[in-house]
Amino acid sequence: MRSAAKSSAGTARRAPAIMSKKRPFRKVVIVGVGLIGGSIGMALRKKRRADLVFGVGPREDELKRAVARKAIDKYETDSGDLEAAFKDADLIVLAASVGRLESIARGISSAIPKETVVTDVGSVKGGLVRRLEERFAGAESGRSRYVGAHPIAGREKSGIEAATADLFANALCILTPTKRTAPKALEQVKRLWEGIGAQTVTMDPDTHDRIVAVVSHLPHVVAYALVNTVLELQSKTGDLVSYSGGGFKDFTRVAASSPEMWRDICLFNRENLLSVIEAFEKVLDRFKRRLVGGDSEGLRQEFDRAKEVKDHTR
Amino acid sequence: MRSAAKSSAGTARRAPAIMSKKRPFRKVVIVGVGLIGGSIGMALRKKRRADLVFGVGPREDELKRAVARKAIDKYETDSGDLEAAFKDADLIVLAASVGRLESIARGISSAIPKETVVTDVGSVKGGLVRRLEERFAGAESGRSRYVGAHPIAGREKSGIEAATADLFANALCILTPTKRTAPKALEQVKRLWEGIGAQTVTMDPDTHDRIVAVVSHLPHVVAYALVNTVLELQSKTGDLVSYSGGGFKDFTRVAASSPEMWRDICLFNRENLLSVIEAFEKVLDRFKRRLVGGDSEGLRQEFDRAKEVKDHTR
Repeated sequence: MRSAAKSSAGTARRAPAIMSKKRPFRKVVIVGVGLIGGSIGMALRKKRRADLVFGVGPREDELKRAVARKAIDKYETDSGDLEAAFKDADLIVLAASVGRLESIARGISSAIPKETVVTDVGSVKGGLVRRLEERFAGAESGRSRYVGAHPIAGREKSGIEAATADLFANALCILTPTKRTAPKALEQVKRLWEGIGAQTVTMDPDTHDRIVAVVSHLPHVVAYALVNTVLELQSKTGDLVSYSGGGFKDFTRVAASSPEMWRDICLFNRENLLSVIEAFEKVLDRFKRRLVGGDSEGLRQEFDRAKEVKDHTR
Repeated sequence: MRSAAKSSAGTARRAPAIMSKKRPFRKVVIVGVGLIGGSIGMALRKKRRADLVFGVGPREDELKRAVARKAIDKYETDSGDLEAAFKDADLIVLAASVGRLESIARGISSAIPKETVVTDVGSVKGGLVRRLEERFAGAESGRSRYVGAHPIAGREKSGIEAATADLFANALCILTPTKRTAPKALEQVKRLWEGIGAQTVTMDPDTHDRIVAVVSHLPHVVAYALVNTVLELQSKTGDLVSYSGGGFKDFTRVAASSPEMWRDICLFNRENLLSVIEAFEKVLDRFKRRLVGGDSEGLRQEFDRAKEVKDHTR
């Protein structure tokens, strides 16, 4: 961009991709303008990474609010003229949670030009990636123009009202290309995320699912189980929650996330999640045995070990 | 205080207790000037709730730092002249964690005047309260001048450097008087906590221990077990923690608390804690069975129920 701008500032924006990774997209279509889709749109517009951000969704009132929040420039409902909506798009972002992703892809794929790169933001990859790769098989022989992506960012609130332009600033976004992925498609998706401030890392879809089962899905399930334990005990004994401090409040924030989204994530990543829940149960059981036995030194080791995590967090 | 000040501002401070609950203490001695003790001292001084705040502790360097941080006016090490340190005190606060409380009480009790009210800040009450009541039996026949207290406040950091004058602002402080408690002692301890901005509630020591097992000790144990699970899986698979988002980071904050303190809390509240860990295991097991069975509706119910907690938190 910088060298192009020197010779001719007026034409730099349309310079071919090879000249700079920082060239803005001409048109990005975001399907689903909730927390994640809305935040992508707001970041693209605020950072001038796209000439046009186009929104597609089921409800016109939500799309209008997305325009008002400067998340998108224009929109079309998904019962409207989708061929016009997707025409000339560089990139289509399916910003839906894993449970709805495939039915949305099925509903719109015939309207998407055969060359257009498609990506998503779902929290589980694996089989979903293989099926979407098939659906969005590309023109290059044997390659797919679909690339899976999963930004490690979120808030407990959902919907366009919770969207912010800086949701992905310094966040990590995991991209899950495979042998089938067209290299140019990966480039486009990388450019999207790096352009709005995220760091990208690539790994295969199955490794992704094993990792997020541990560091994301297990913590959520444990938080839900803890909150439910407290509520169930409270229903027998009377008020408990009023006496809680900071530790428990951290758990309740997690528990406020979308129930539908988390149900779907758990079902889509079931095998990995079951395996890490069992690993967690073993650690808890070891703790319990040390507690029953009054093993002061063993308990202290448990608490000491956990402190190591501070050296590992980003 | 206000009416006394009208007639004679100069003598208002020494007005008898019956005139106002807001009269400042003449002298409060804080034994242990770490996070909690230091924060009590800073709040007492900032809010002018005591004419003199006196610190007692094992290490002179820590006591000097407490003076520098305006947590205490004067100090004495616990190998120094403790009779002078405790002389004329209205109130002695044993600001040590549960594991050290009794040995500290044993070491200093002979130097404490027979009328002086004594309180503590320990996270477990029960048997500890009964033993300290015995040690600090009062002049009133059959009554004790000791009152148990547990402020629901804290930070992951410990020590005088982490102390702040507003740690107890709007926090809840549970007081655990019993049939043996001298009413005047309870009044003094209530005046301390309300004077530095906390809300007080009274309950018997065993009820306290059952409640905190659920809303404080279980969440801490679960957080530790989760962090340890992730670290143990990571030692087999390679980096995991770098890929964690907000959910897991909430857990790591809890895990950063003092290992010795938490080991002692768990051992002192062992029976209650074991019982609530088992309740938690049952909830987690129910979740797991629903996940294994692909019970979409059941899983959704689990996640939905947890959201109720938001209606209960203070």
